[in-house]
Amino acid sequence: MDSNEPPHYRISRIARELEAKGLDIIHMEIGDPELNTDKRIIDAMYRAALEGYTHYGYSQGLPELRDEIADYLNSRLNTDLDRDNICLTPGGKVAIYLTLRLLNKKRIGVLEPIWGLYHSFSKVLDLEVVSIRSEFENRWIPTDDELKKFGEVDIISLVNPSNPTGTILPKDTLDKIVDIATKNEGYIVADELYFDLTYGETRFTSFLEYDYDNAISIFSFSKNYAMTGFRVGFIVSTNKDWITKFARYMRLVIGGVPPFIQFAALEALNNKEIIDTNRRFYREQTMYLMNELKKLGFNMVKPEAGIYLFPRVPEGIDGIEFVEKLLTIGRVAVSPGTGFGDYPEFVRFTTALKKDKLEEAVKRIKYTLENIV
Amino acid sequence: MDSNEPPHYRISRIARELEAKGLDIIHMEIGDPELNTDKRIIDAMYRAALEGYTHYGYSQGLPELRDEIADYLNSRLNTDLDRDNICLTPGGKVAIYLTLRLLNKKRIGVLEPIWGLYHSFSKVLDLEVVSIRSEFENRWIPTDDELKKFGEVDIISLVNPSNPTGTILPKDTLDKIVDIATKNEGYIVADELYFDLTYGETRFTSFLEYDYDNAISIFSFSKNYAMTGFRVGFIVSTNKDWITKFARYMRLVIGGVPPFIQFAALEALNNKEIIDTNRRFYREQTMYLMNELKKLGFNMVKPEAGIYLFPRVPEGIDGIEFVEKLLTIGRVAVSPGTGFGDYPEFVRFTTALKKDKLEEAVKRIKYTLENIV
Repeated sequence: MDSNEPPHYRISRIARELEAKGLDIIHMEIGDPELNTDKRIIDAMYRAALEGYTHYGYSQGLPELRDEIADYLNSRLNTDLDRDNICLTPGGKVAIYLTLRLLNKKRIGVLEPIWGLYHSFSKVLDLEVVSIRSEFENRWIPTDDELKKFGEVDIISLVNPSNPTGTILPKDTLDKIVDIATKNEGYIVADELYFDLTYGETRFTSFLEYDYDNAISIFSFSKNYAMTGFRVGFIVSTNKDWITKFARYMRLVIGGVPPFIQFAALEALNNKEIIDTNRRFYREQTMYLMNELKKLGFNMVKPEAGIYLFPRVPEGIDGIEFVEKLLTIGRVAVSPGTGFGDYPEFVRFTTALKKDKLEEAVKRIKYTLENIV
Repeated sequence: MDSNEPPHYRISRIARELEAKGLDIIHMEIGDPELNTDKRIIDAMYRAALEGYTHYGYSQGLPELRDEIADYLNSRLNTDLDRDNICLTPGGKVAIYLTLRLLNKKRIGVLEPIWGLYHSFSKVLDLEVVSIRSEFENRWIPTDDELKKFGEVDIISLVNPSNPTGTILPKDTLDKIVDIATKNEGYIVADELYFDLTYGETRFTSFLEYDYDNAISIFSFSKNYAMTGFRVGFIVSTNKDWITKFARYMRLVIGGVPPFIQFAALEALNNKEIIDTNRRFYREQTMYLMNELKKLGFNMVKPEAGIYLFPRVPEGIDGIEFVEKLLTIGRVAVSPGTGFGDYPEFVRFTTALKKDKLEEAVKRIKYTLENIV
């Protein structure tokens, strides 16, 4: 199992060991916004629990919650979804895991750099991974030659808007991917959870807008509503049969999301301005950190969504060494680029920290750079 | 997937379809006690969420919660466990699923009758199932000849106290099972979640008391504290390396139990008298229904634990037909014995319903029996 431990889990673990020794660590390795969950959401959970929503049930998701989700997606995307296109899950992670498990295929193509979980899941599920690379030099948009490789796989997998780069794939690229998938009868598993945290110029396009029958999109309440610890996400497909199948599998294996948490999610959707507030915070923090890192010699494509930066380390610096030293000298935990594919010169920073913590992090990064011989 | 749908899920689904048509169904097919969760538990969850325990973290489980669980088990069992022997999980189900997945073996022996999930999980995980039968005539205690078959498998699996029969295996039987496992280097996966809901004369023995390195026990807060919807359980092994491995896997795939739910569980453990209250309720309801069913010609071994009865249907009645008619004529949903192995003459009733509902159920059962030609 240890070989399946994603690199940022390893960093996180070492960071906690250092903390146990009394050291003060700034955590920028995990995508957990430093924001409180809105009290209305917590209150709604409490009310539901008191009202007796503490029993089994709603394994596919509360009907009214799925209705609200469908309405929201339809209002934001060019889709015509209803409750039967949706299944709630205890977080986005397990949604991806169970999807890959249920598809039960041999080869998966992943658009890199990509959130490390896809590599780890492929390992534990015995999926052969085909890397479809994108490059910093191309602003993280894959070339046609790279995209072609998606024709060799059973499952096309990507995170859009991207974790770690914050890039939004242009519609043109999605058109090509859907074309390839259609010819190949491939599945598309798209992690689209940052779709409502966009702040750039590129319009986000969802695979759900294609009405492609083998496309599955994954979403979550974690970042947009700052509800990481609630473990609540959902999968969506235009293929209702697939959703029914998935819902049964999920019910069998897990049982579902606690009903009172589903009421919390419903309350979140009834207060969508929370997303606007959080998005503003994420954009400001991301832009602040981007500018500070640039001053220190980091190079990056300006992100258009999400809560991460994925810069190339300053010239003359070894990326892997930097991550280690940043932890041991600077006491800042970040994710090495190798956790997202073969990107040893890159580093992922989570930007969703409060201003004073980001300022302190910048100081420590500077200090670390000065102390790497 | 449909072929993996456990029979009681099917009944449950049809029951909900009938309810959608306006019919009033009594649910005795699912193990969901008709009890409210103690308000102190809900309040503790609310407090923790307000205090900011809404983030990622504690994927193996809050240290103080694991300490409390270890203390509780040590106080009830002949064990010497600590926090590192324990990993929290979002419910007992997924604990079993992930355990079987992580063990990654070929053959599983299940002591039947057994909760249907073991058969379903074996199917979706491509495990070959070897049935080790126990019989009503032997008071559901397996014979030595049957037990021997455990020597042919990689994983020995059972639910003790039993779901569905409520039988507690005598220590003598456990001795034999551990002997067989030891010779064979087999794993023991024991669902022991009803251990603190015993009300018979047989003392419960846990596999954890053997200090057998390949034994994994599964527990849950669902029934003892009436917290089914909270989805919180835990696995325990004397093998700490196994627990570490499992915790990493669980973190990778799911992330963990929401921290505020872990505080709810901690509050539950600080109010253990709740179990006594609930146990009394379960025993009373079980004994009441047992006596009423006997009057109607059902035959059963008096259960010693849990919230179920597993009687043989009255002579001259076909078990499968009875389950169908009881739903369509009597509007009572129960689980067919075929959901627990090859036991077509038996039926599982959940007994943890309030008195008036049980009385009404008895009337409907009587009416159904009278109307089966």
